[in-house]
Amino acid sequence: MSETMNSTNPADVLQALIRCPSVTPAEGGALTALQALVEPLGFKVERVTMHESGTPDIENLYARIGDSGPHLMFAGHTDVVPVGNEADWSHPPFAAEIANGMLFGRGAVDMKGGIACFIAAMARLVEEKGAPKGSVSLLITGDEEGPAVNGTVKLLEWAKAKGEHWDACLVGEPTNPDKLGDMIKIGRRGSISATVTVRGVQGHAAYPHLADNPVRGAVRLSDALMHPPFDHGTDNFQPSNLEVTSIDVGNPATNVIPAAANFKFNIRFNDLWSAESVQAEILHRLDTAAAESHLRPGREPIAYDIVWSERPSHVFLTRNNALIDSLSGAIATVTGATPQLSTTGGTSDARFIKDYCPVVEFGLVGQTMHMVDERVSVEDLETLTRIYKTFIEQWFANADA
Amino acid sequence: MSETMNSTNPADVLQALIRCPSVTPAEGGALTALQALVEPLGFKVERVTMHESGTPDIENLYARIGDSGPHLMFAGHTDVVPVGNEADWSHPPFAAEIANGMLFGRGAVDMKGGIACFIAAMARLVEEKGAPKGSVSLLITGDEEGPAVNGTVKLLEWAKAKGEHWDACLVGEPTNPDKLGDMIKIGRRGSISATVTVRGVQGHAAYPHLADNPVRGAVRLSDALMHPPFDHGTDNFQPSNLEVTSIDVGNPATNVIPAAANFKFNIRFNDLWSAESVQAEILHRLDTAAAESHLRPGREPIAYDIVWSERPSHVFLTRNNALIDSLSGAIATVTGATPQLSTTGGTSDARFIKDYCPVVEFGLVGQTMHMVDERVSVEDLETLTRIYKTFIEQWFANADA
Ligand SMILES: [Zn+2]
Ligand SMILES: [Zn+2]
Repeated sequence: MSETMNSTNPADVLQALIRCPSVTPAEGGALTALQALVEPLGFKVERVTMHESGTPDIENLYARIGDSGPHLMFAGHTDVVPVGNEADWSHPPFAAEIANGMLFGRGAVDMKGGIACFIAAMARLVEEKGAPKGSVSLLITGDEEGPAVNGTVKLLEWAKAKGEHWDACLVGEPTNPDKLGDMIKIGRRGSISATVTVRGVQGHAAYPHLADNPVRGAVRLSDALMHPPFDHGTDNFQPSNLEVTSIDVGNPATNVIPAAANFKFNIRFNDLWSAESVQAEILHRLDTAAAESHLRPGREPIAYDIVWSERPSHVFLTRNNALIDSLSGAIATVTGATPQLSTTGGTSDARFIKDYCPVVEFGLVGQTMHMVDERVSVEDLETLTRIYKTFIEQWFANADA
Repeated sequence: MSETMNSTNPADVLQALIRCPSVTPAEGGALTALQALVEPLGFKVERVTMHESGTPDIENLYARIGDSGPHLMFAGHTDVVPVGNEADWSHPPFAAEIANGMLFGRGAVDMKGGIACFIAAMARLVEEKGAPKGSVSLLITGDEEGPAVNGTVKLLEWAKAKGEHWDACLVGEPTNPDKLGDMIKIGRRGSISATVTVRGVQGHAAYPHLADNPVRGAVRLSDALMHPPFDHGTDNFQPSNLEVTSIDVGNPATNVIPAAANFKFNIRFNDLWSAESVQAEILHRLDTAAAESHLRPGREPIAYDIVWSERPSHVFLTRNNALIDSLSGAIATVTGATPQLSTTGGTSDARFIKDYCPVVEFGLVGQTMHMVDERVSVEDLETLTRIYKTFIEQWFANADA
């Protein structure tokens, strides 16, 4: 960090963070830089390393200012995805160079930028009015972009075990599709993946009656999952959507009927479903299609196995008006725009946090995240800092009332 | 060959042939043994090596006794498929041991056994009555079990170029499913294979509207090829049948919609179709399914490529009553059974020979072909020798009449 660091300036803070090459699972100096930034503001910082056999140890950070309620949490991650082909970048990915008003670097929007704006907002608040009446915590993890087993989930459990309790949480992930103020995320669809194996009987393509081609069953079963639609969406959610992401047989011989066929799918499901009910519907569709005999005269039902490939991500929807209104109001005050309350997109760590307190997500514009030349405008950093500052003030005012 | 070889005994002849390890493309001494067996009977033998860049040179044999018409050809191959795991055999695969009336060895039924019986039949005929009035030729190749580019096709062209003309052909491949006399093959379905590639647009499973999942198109197109049936069979043929033998995407990432999906298929088609008309029907089905938009609201037709993967095998049906009746009659005379006139099963070299003369196929029981412990009963060898001898006599008698 330079001697001239001014933590009320989000671009300065972001440059300091980007220059720490914290590609998952490396800490890369990013948490140390963060600690050095927030301790002068009055945060008490704890560094917590999490372990799990078979995965790398991950460093995480928890910081809190204040020791009474109401208690607002800001959640995020300092780890970043790999840079890809470094030669393709216009500016080195860890140099944090500013050109034509844009700050370039890996993590600029996902999500060192969001962290930088929140720190700058807190620095301005503390400078203007001292610590807020209540508490603000930072829950910052180091493997959101990795397997996510040694990050948010364990850090939440660790904090709860030592008595932490939160009233609301803001996740600083990039949420805006086009411009700052477009979109708040107030929920996320659930997600489940699985692999289905259809077993047949190998044989020669000229003697199909002596064989049982599992490709027929795999096509039939995957078709039954893709149609009809699971639903047509709800007030708050897009329609649930299932994608068959791979089908694989690996049979090199044109004249041979293979013994087995696999397919994989992923479903994003809305608040009409729980993880359990959507799994039950999937099994019902598979069993119904497997039992249909008209495609397989005189044959047994299609024989299949299903392996659910990961812990399901549960659907959630935040209905806390004080939280949502504080954030929407701050966005409207600073930008004049009314943000869309959305539940679109992939999963985020908010799916873990919602079990502890109401959670919303708002950050920068996501267009360049995970790409070469990831970048953010210096103007957006200033605007997001003002939004975060106004939000914090409004949330504590609402909580006080 | 032993000093006591008696070429009228098919088991002796078969033992001599099996002891030559002629796994494709190796000649293994088998054609030399064959030459030594038939020259004493009066056959003029020519050994012809065929070449093609990218494939091994293959030795073949053409032998003829007599120099006038009518002219009967016997076609076969001395090459054999690999033995698999030699330790699994009860008797060494090239030892030609006889145990409990069964002669064991690779090629026992496919098809050194058929060749041995034809030689024994000819030896008996020559011993009893001298050479037949007309000609008998042996067209024996060395790569029927291999790529089949340096065998029957080229040997037929070579023989035709030097003036050979045939009136009928018997192929000695194993044709009987259960017992000797079950089945003559009087035709074969055609066969065509192809690979279809469906192109989509890669993307994240959470943002399917930004992607275009090619698995959906691959399932739709392969389903359109599998249903409805191409036909319901004809007087002489089973229904045409299409098998999708592989579908492959190879996408390891659960959350990623892949960019392309491939599938392969093979169709066996009957005499309602030509290779050209069945290809046209397949393209019609693919184009119709690709254009259907109800599964892809607002999207372009499914984009696909098709690559036809080999020269099609044309369908054929032999309608020469003199040939079929001579063979059926011989089987009935020797065994008392009336053979089924079939067009089932895979392709054979008969599909090439039918362009030169009428062709039928009859040989041993195929149950153990290509398997460990391939074997034939000594009794079946004697019975097939009698059938072949009676067939040759009846065919020349019919041709004379
Ligand atoms: Zn992120
Ligand atoms: Zn064969």
